Amino acid sequence: MKKIALLCVAVLTVAGIFAFKTSASGEFEEEIAPIYGVKIPPGYRDWRLISVARVGDPLNDLRAKLGNDIAVKAYREGKLPFPDGTIIARLAWKQKTSETIKNAFRVRGGTETNLSPEQVEKLVDGSFVAGSPTNVQFMVKDSKQYASTGGWGFAQFNDGKPADEATHKTCFSCHEPAKDSDFVFTRYAP
Amino acid sequence: MKKIALLCVAVLTVAGIFAFKTSASGEFEEEIAPIYGVKIPPGYRDWRLISVARVGDPLNDLRAKLGNDIAVKAYREGKLPFPDGTIIARLAWKQKTSETIKNAFRVRGGTETNLSPEQVEKLVDGSFVAGSPTNVQFMVKDSKQYASTGGWGFAQFNDGKPADEATHKTCFSCHEPAKDSDFVFTRYAP
Repeated sequence: MKKIALLCVAVLTVAGIFAFKTSASGEFEEEIAPIYGVKIPPGYRDWRLISVARVGDPLNDLRAKLGNDIAVKAYREGKLPFPDGTIIARLAWKQKTSETIKNAFRVRGGTETNLSPEQVEKLVDGSFVAGSPTNVQFMVKDSKQYASTGGWGFAQFNDGKPADEATHKTCFSCHEPAKDSDFVFTRYAP
Repeated sequence: MKKIALLCVAVLTVAGIFAFKTSASGEFEEEIAPIYGVKIPPGYRDWRLISVARVGDPLNDLRAKLGNDIAVKAYREGKLPFPDGTIIARLAWKQKTSETIKNAFRVRGGTETNLSPEQVEKLVDGSFVAGSPTNVQFMVKDSKQYASTGGWGFAQFNDGKPADEATHKTCFSCHEPAKDSDFVFTRYAP
């Protein structure tokens, strides 16, 4: 009986540690975005690249669109509308300048290209790398669940937390001009 | 004897078809870049994203850096120098404007943000998506084979064809300013 009691204590302690870890790490806490009820898809940062973009002032960010396997397959096969199960992720980072890269351009521009010093500075001024992340957006295709918004559910997460309802109310109206490409702006970049 | 002869004809015919197919499809033709002898790594377009960048006028391109599994693991673990077997791919596309996206910004900017029409036009003027691909570059880590160039072999392919020797002579000198980060400019974008 004592042995069983000890075993129970051990089991409960281990279970408690795991429960605590699950909660503290946040890995299994599911944040749900308003209106469409979209969660952050696990492993999306490992998805394949669809394309890249840049948005001007005052946003001044650099963007990447990643797709799950269904999305990438549909893109490569030119399949429209996108099939149910498609998820497209839009990552964005504040653009920032890199002094190391600037100097490399200056060295290379001055010696190995036919650019004048003024032209090199112009190139350098317009060159950016990805800085801190801004937010992540997702489009999830489910033609039944999201029938009233072109079959798409939308979500935005800021630092892992869903943006507010007002933000999510703007998603579909903003994507409506892309109706001819199933409400998706991004084309596949070969 | 006749049977063996027929069998030989059959085998040679099949072998011939395969040889022809291999050659005609080009899939197994290996284009080798000068100096470092780097070939295009199979399946690199499916690799995971490291980061994105933009280069200013007169290049005006948008870029993505992809890494093989060894590269991405090293980046995420902050491992320097990169281990042998690391391959980093730099893809680039001419920036282009998208009228659909411009109009979406105009609609959204006018109704749902606090940007003035002039501010929206400024944002639109600085916004680009990926257009036609320019060239693809690779950095391949092999600390023995490429000992004299920081352990890296470099390659550039234009439309699948290796760039000339003169181009490849510029690779290492351009990357030397990034010596502190193992001659790699790009940081991992979370």
